[in-house]
Amino acid sequence: MQGGTMIFKNKEQKLEKVNDGISRRILAHDKNLMLVELYFEKGAMGTPHSHIHEQVSYVKEGKFEYESNGVTLVLEAGDSIFLPSNSVHGAVCIEKGVLLDIFTPQREDFLKKE
Amino acid sequence: MQGGTMIFKNKEQKLEKVNDGISRRILAHDKNLMLVELYFEKGAMGTPHSHIHEQVSYVKEGKFEYESNGVTLVLEAGDSIFLPSNSVHGAVCIEKGVLLDIFTPQREDFLKKE
Repeated sequence: MQGGTMIFKNKEQKLEKVNDGISRRILAHDKNLMLVELYFEKGAMGTPHSHIHEQVSYVKEGKFEYESNGVTLVLEAGDSIFLPSNSVHGAVCIEKGVLLDIFTPQREDFLKKE
Repeated sequence: MQGGTMIFKNKEQKLEKVNDGISRRILAHDKNLMLVELYFEKGAMGTPHSHIHEQVSYVKEGKFEYESNGVTLVLEAGDSIFLPSNSVHGAVCIEKGVLLDIFTPQREDFLKKE
């Protein structure tokens, strides 16, 4: 589209397996912002990790146990969390669901895997 | 929480009316990133506007006619759009639904209204 606006139709974006019980679809993104859908089966675990990118996670569906810097808490549909740069964080899926992960800047490492 | 991580339980965030048929709930945010839920009634219109913040919009539910820099297109559940800094954009709700708007940096103007 004109002027840098970009449309990302959901069904046109590749769904890729990233871990046991976890699939990912990269949605709208540009240099400074990236939106990613993550589909979790019950019991699937995003192992604790960290990155320089600031992150917001939003629970679209299901229930997740989040761990950030050693503290554990439960997030349900509609709840969100802000994770600063370099925080160590992970999540376990308690009820099958979907997370939206949002990053600034975008995760260049995700794009290289495509 | 420790180290700058912040939890935003959905029900604890204020739902505020922003326009006829449109309500907003500010979710996870920090200086460089902000997530906002927008509830639209059918026919409600986010009038065309622009701002320096880069934006991603994600259709969580419903159907929307988006206008960006004079081009019109329909976005359905799961679709997303990247809007660069200063792009003129607006949306009309075709089927009652929910948008997630994501900004970098955060919308300080939204926080001042609280």
